Amino acid sequence: MRCSSQQMDGRGFHPMFILISFRKPAACAVLRSVFLMGPIMEQIFSASELTHTVLKHFFRWSWGSNYVMSNGGGVMSSTTHLLDFLEEPIPGVGTYDDFHTIDWVREKCKDRERHRKINAKKKESAWEFTKSLYDAWSGWLVVTLTGLASGALAGLIDIAADWLNDIKEGVCLNAMWFNHEQCCWGSNETTFAERDKCPQWKSWAGLILGQEEGPGSYIMNYFMYIYWALSFAFLAVLLVKVFAPYACGSGIPEIKTILSGFIIRGYLGKWTLLIKTVTLVLAVASGLSLGKEGPLVHVACCCGNIFSYLFPKYSKNEAKKREVLSAASAAGVSVAFGAPIGGVLFSLEEVSYYFPLKTLWRSFFAALVAAFVLRSINPFGNSRLVLFYVEYHTPWYLFELIPFILLGVFGGLWGAFFIKANIAWCRRRKSTRFGKYPILEVIFVAAITAVVAFPNPYTRQNTSELIKELFTDCGPLESSQLCQYRSQMNGSKAFVDASPNKPAGPGVYAAIWQLCLALIFKIIMTIFTFGLKVPAGLFIPSMAIGAIAGRIVGIAVEQLAYYHHDWLVFREWCEVGTDCITPGLYAMVGAAACLGGVTRMTVSLVVIVFELTGGLEYIVPLMAAVMTSKWVGDAFGREGIYESHIRLNGYPFLDAKEEFTHTTLAREVMRPRRSDPPLAVLTQDDLTVEELQGIINETSYNGFPVIVSKESQRLVGFALRRDITIAIENARRKQEGILLTSRVYFTQHAPTLPADSPRPLKLRSILDMSPFTVTDHTPMEIVVDIFRKLGLRQCLVTHNGRLLGIITKKDILRHMAQMANQDPDNIMFN
Amino acid sequence: MRCSSQQMDGRGFHPMFILISFRKPAACAVLRSVFLMGPIMEQIFSASELTHTVLKHFFRWSWGSNYVMSNGGGVMSSTTHLLDFLEEPIPGVGTYDDFHTIDWVREKCKDRERHRKINAKKKESAWEFTKSLYDAWSGWLVVTLTGLASGALAGLIDIAADWLNDIKEGVCLNAMWFNHEQCCWGSNETTFAERDKCPQWKSWAGLILGQEEGPGSYIMNYFMYIYWALSFAFLAVLLVKVFAPYACGSGIPEIKTILSGFIIRGYLGKWTLLIKTVTLVLAVASGLSLGKEGPLVHVACCCGNIFSYLFPKYSKNEAKKREVLSAASAAGVSVAFGAPIGGVLFSLEEVSYYFPLKTLWRSFFAALVAAFVLRSINPFGNSRLVLFYVEYHTPWYLFELIPFILLGVFGGLWGAFFIKANIAWCRRRKSTRFGKYPILEVIFVAAITAVVAFPNPYTRQNTSELIKELFTDCGPLESSQLCQYRSQMNGSKAFVDASPNKPAGPGVYAAIWQLCLALIFKIIMTIFTFGLKVPAGLFIPSMAIGAIAGRIVGIAVEQLAYYHHDWLVFREWCEVGTDCITPGLYAMVGAAACLGGVTRMTVSLVVIVFELTGGLEYIVPLMAAVMTSKWVGDAFGREGIYESHIRLNGYPFLDAKEEFTHTTLAREVMRPRRSDPPLAVLTQDDLTVEELQGIINETSYNGFPVIVSKESQRLVGFALRRDITIAIENARRKQEGILLTSRVYFTQHAPTLPADSPRPLKLRSILDMSPFTVTDHTPMEIVVDIFRKLGLRQCLVTHNGRLLGIITKKDILRHMAQMANQDPDNIMFN
Repeated sequence: MRCSSQQMDGRGFHPMFILISFRKPAACAVLRSVFLMGPIMEQIFSASELTHTVLKHFFRWSWGSNYVMSNGGGVMSSTTHLLDFLEEPIPGVGTYDDFHTIDWVREKCKDRERHRKINAKKKESAWEFTKSLYDAWSGWLVVTLTGLASGALAGLIDIAADWLNDIKEGVCLNAMWFNHEQCCWGSNETTFAERDKCPQWKSWAGLILGQEEGPGSYIMNYFMYIYWALSFAFLAVLLVKVFAPYACGSGIPEIKTILSGFIIRGYLGKWTLLIKTVTLVLAVASGLSLGKEGPLVHVACCCGNIFSYLFPKYSKNEAKKREVLSAASAAGVSVAFGAPIGGVLFSLEEVSYYFPLKTLWRSFFAALVAAFVLRSINPFGNSRLVLFYVEYHTPWYLFELIPFILLGVFGGLWGAFFIKANIAWCRRRKSTRFGKYPILEVIFVAAITAVVAFPNPYTRQNTSELIKELFTDCGPLESSQLCQYRSQMNGSKAFVDASPNKPAGPGVYAAIWQLCLALIFKIIMTIFTFGLKVPAGLFIPSMAIGAIAGRIVGIAVEQLAYYHHDWLVFREWCEVGTDCITPGLYAMVGAAACLGGVTRMTVSLVVIVFELTGGLEYIVPLMAAVMTSKWVGDAFGREGIYESHIRLNGYPFLDAKEEFTHTTLAREVMRPRRSDPPLAVLTQDDLTVEELQGIINETSYNGFPVIVSKESQRLVGFALRRDITIAIENARRKQEGILLTSRVYFTQHAPTLPADSPRPLKLRSILDMSPFTVTDHTPMEIVVDIFRKLGLRQCLVTHNGRLLGIITKKDILRHMAQMANQDPDNIMFN
Repeated sequence: MRCSSQQMDGRGFHPMFILISFRKPAACAVLRSVFLMGPIMEQIFSASELTHTVLKHFFRWSWGSNYVMSNGGGVMSSTTHLLDFLEEPIPGVGTYDDFHTIDWVREKCKDRERHRKINAKKKESAWEFTKSLYDAWSGWLVVTLTGLASGALAGLIDIAADWLNDIKEGVCLNAMWFNHEQCCWGSNETTFAERDKCPQWKSWAGLILGQEEGPGSYIMNYFMYIYWALSFAFLAVLLVKVFAPYACGSGIPEIKTILSGFIIRGYLGKWTLLIKTVTLVLAVASGLSLGKEGPLVHVACCCGNIFSYLFPKYSKNEAKKREVLSAASAAGVSVAFGAPIGGVLFSLEEVSYYFPLKTLWRSFFAALVAAFVLRSINPFGNSRLVLFYVEYHTPWYLFELIPFILLGVFGGLWGAFFIKANIAWCRRRKSTRFGKYPILEVIFVAAITAVVAFPNPYTRQNTSELIKELFTDCGPLESSQLCQYRSQMNGSKAFVDASPNKPAGPGVYAAIWQLCLALIFKIIMTIFTFGLKVPAGLFIPSMAIGAIAGRIVGIAVEQLAYYHHDWLVFREWCEVGTDCITPGLYAMVGAAACLGGVTRMTVSLVVIVFELTGGLEYIVPLMAAVMTSKWVGDAFGREGIYESHIRLNGYPFLDAKEEFTHTTLAREVMRPRRSDPPLAVLTQDDLTVEELQGIINETSYNGFPVIVSKESQRLVGFALRRDITIAIENARRKQEGILLTSRVYFTQHAPTLPADSPRPLKLRSILDMSPFTVTDHTPMEIVVDIFRKLGLRQCLVTHNGRLLGIITKKDILRHMAQMANQDPDNIMFN
């Protein structure tokens, strides 16, 4: 005979029991009687709390692992845990649903509790000590792994995107897997100036038609370019649509929201990582007007999230996990631009919400590790960490601040225009039928891009190569069309006198016209591209637009200085025969201004660009342009593109940068409003299970305040809906005698009940006995401050010690939208 | 006849009245009757709130400036102001006493209120619009001015200290005000290698005895060196003692405390600035083992504080002022090391408490402005921004991480040892009679320093020059003793083959012995120097110690690699005949490690040193050393030197970095404890003025909770002692009929009183109706978090809506000291 656990009145499963029952079947009856006696004895002695405690200890000891096993589900908030150490934690309590906001305070308490437990145990044995060391080091381990993975993936993406991008134009005969540059490395026949031309590399026309020149081959190349671009775009959108819808876009708005304490399950998962990596390569190679820098942040965050599952310290705590994600986003920017310090500041300024100093240090480490991994992969083949390494040899002069500030104004205007146009288009896509055909849309945009881009060499080439060319100063070895100044027309291309400013040759004029066309093309296409269902970053297109505008302005100023040497400004600064204006610097300033206008980043942007050039010299021009761009942009609307997309998608994001300037008081924002039904509250000891379930079913609130009594309205604590549901289910499954008529109590001691009433249910363990309260007279600016700084989910409102109402994060966001004359119902999630 | 204002029952002074009285003496009687009638009429109608309001408005209008004049004293907290717009602000309410903690929440509310007022007015007229623009720009203006002033002062200090330092050795015959280097600039006779020797520069022996060489002149020079050193030290300590006692020390512990929200009047005033600037020069020149980098932060903060008085936005708001101070401290580090980004990170990581993003941006700007001003002053004569500009030409190898980590261990040990020894010595100075003679102490230390320092060239020279020499790689033009390797002994000094590692010559061995002596000397003297009553920074001595240790280790590894070329590690990496080890890099890593050990800075330190070298290459060695140093140091005690000095001085500083790991609850920390008398509370409407004054006089608390009644204990608000005192005084001076038996009420409406009772006093305007409350079950870790993040001064503790007690910042600090087994009574201020 073997008595199953079902026989024991559903008291759960006891492994010890099986062991015993196998050895000695007679023990079964004894055991059963002990198990049955427990609740009966408890009932008898329930009036006396002391006996109750003693009994509980006894039964806990005798039931053993049944409780221990249920311990793993979730570490309780120390708030409640400390007071109710007799209560056993209920599995599932303390976790979150998808699309819900986390409670930072509770998470941090949980972590401290866990830390204390490990610290207390560590002196017990060598094994525990090792475990505590592992725990202490796991933070460094996870950021190291994240840095390694981000660097490796970034290198992989760079190499693959380069190769696929060149596939559009031709193929390497020696080895398919070489890109154009690698293909020609081996070839010793070419001079340095013609390093891009070698017999091993065949354009498609050369391969198919057998001839490299002529209109026929041009058309052939054109056709193959469009064919490959469409194929890549189609593949990218298909993969995203089928496997990982979260892989689209830049991901930064969502990461900002997640870091602010929101849960979006799967957004940083392994599928998203895989598909985003693959489709990012395809999207970049398809020639669409997008960059890989923003999505790299998403990729790095996916790595951080996945590695955090190796360490219970991070996987089981949403607040700690966000520290890893902050570090990961720093690593992402670090590999995107080769700028570790800029990456850390980007994470601090733009992305993160909760950024303790420990995270600063770890972010820095992750960014460095990622940068060094990328450097050892060496995807650009120049041993440099940075994407656009430039060195300028001339200083800048004070009068140049005027064109730099003009570039800043252009950047600000572009940013404001782009945000408005892009958001309008995305809103149209969301609201009309048009958004139902994402694949068609991508193919359509890719087709237009490819058709228009091919004839113009500045749009045909890779955007980051374009930016590099625009940034680079015209040196003696520069073969670019942009450097065909007149004095060099006499001699060979390879011997150009670098130093003094020279009159522009026809090559430069032709280049300027092509650049103007490229500028218009990029401006239009970027608006329609950002928001497509493919991975799409905004940094590179924005920088390209700014770099084109900057280079044009730079050449204009340079020629002005050449032809009007007698003007006061030029006479003062530009000596005859010396180099005075560096058009490449203008391109860099323009790029920073445009990126600043779109994202409204400031310090991190300047530092990123500073790390590109490596010279403190040029920080002042950059700052002037970036500041102007931010101020001009802010005049048209204070939100950057990421905040606009967050608002468009209705994520519950409480921006730390935005000031709350209104004079409303807490009582005007709290629920219930005057016309609303009264607040749904629970009383601490006179509800039955049925009544409680009734309240839960009738309402949709996420939590309920618990009060002393309806008359006094004095606040006791706060209980979460999810926790109550789980606790009731758990009790009805595991505890004897819990009926619908059972009294529910949140107090320390059970209320005195009539003799025939069923066993009461104690729910004190799920009660948060330290809910945040503010008085009804508290100005909303303080309330908003508290929500931001402490990361609250809700806050109770009292008046003279009596409970009046509740304010949730959603209420605040709705109120802020209302004050800004926006539709408050746009905030979808809570 | 002229009726004086005294005749009008002390109702204050009315300028209109004098005007009238001069013209028409008869108007006097009429006016007097109107002025007297006011309070009488008010008494009659006092029962009706509406009439009261109407009357008040009428009298406000008729009395005019009496109220308007009292308006300037302080903008009220918006909390109370909004609700009681009928109440007039009382001058002095809302300001702080010396050595008190500010209320960040209230300050921020005040600022928002001010901002709203300006915004509301700005459309009224062009003048108001200009004013609003000025207000919006004042933040940028004040940081620009601060940056300019810090840069200029830093340049001045650099130049003056250089000159005075050289005065110890000799004098320039051409022009007294030239230092050694400048003196020899004009001389064309000297070669580059002997650029320090020129006939214009005479040592004291040369000037007085007429001979430069020989034992007599050595003794003469020795004597003059000691004489000048003692004179400078004496002058410095005298000036500090007489004029500005706050000018001593590095100032960083106090600045940290001030930034965390403490008031120390005069610490950042103009006298401190003046005296600190002058005495800093003297102290550096006296040859004491101290640096000027820390005090430069204090100087920059003084500039920030002084300039903030030009802008009411900053001068009248303690929270806003601290934003300027954060930016100023960034500017201070920026000029100290020529590292703007490092300065911003230093301000963020080490100094600041409240650091919003706006401050980040402005700090960056201030740091840049200061750096550029310093560069245009060009005090080092090398057009470089940075103090120790170095360029290394060889990469580092992985096996070098072992010595780098060893240097990190050394740095950590040195840091822990220094902190313990210095604090023990400072405590001794405080507790014994010894501390009563600061001038004698300084002279004594200066004398020992001078006597011991002179014979050793490495201690005689300026410490920053020593560091520079140790950092610099041995190039062909290096004439230093440290670069006398054997291969160069054959030829002339000027032609040294730079590249491969060479066996050390006797010069190097002699240098190593001298460096060892210098190391011991610096270690001992720094312990006794930091804490003297002169301006004394710690950065340069710490870096010097690290640089000496690093250079010695570097030379050792270099020679090891030369003589044991067959060892596996060297065979792998060091090819024969190529340069393998850079001893200068070891010096830099050692300097960073020692500074890290003492201050426990991490990211900012790495970034500062990174900005010195300008190469990302060397970040990994730096990080390895700094991290090791921090961990080793933390093993002996988690506090850096600044936190230790804060604790030594008993400043109420709640460190944001320290984790609160205990499990105590709010009810265990709150006052009153079980054995204490009950909490001193005010009831909202049944106290008389006399009773209220009695409570205030009997207790020494800074504030009192206001409750509904003694029975219910339900909380209404919180009133500050200072505000109550001022309000009562103000009322008794200005309001008619306020007697000792007057009833005091905090409610909206006056309580119903017996007919014969005197006029009640309404104090609602000083009541903070949104006090922060926590429940008694709240874990202290959450309470500490709230205090840190919101910058609270006190927090009330409730249980089920009833007031139980109060927790102040002081209680928390005391509790934390108690938990750490320290003397809780060491916290002096509140």
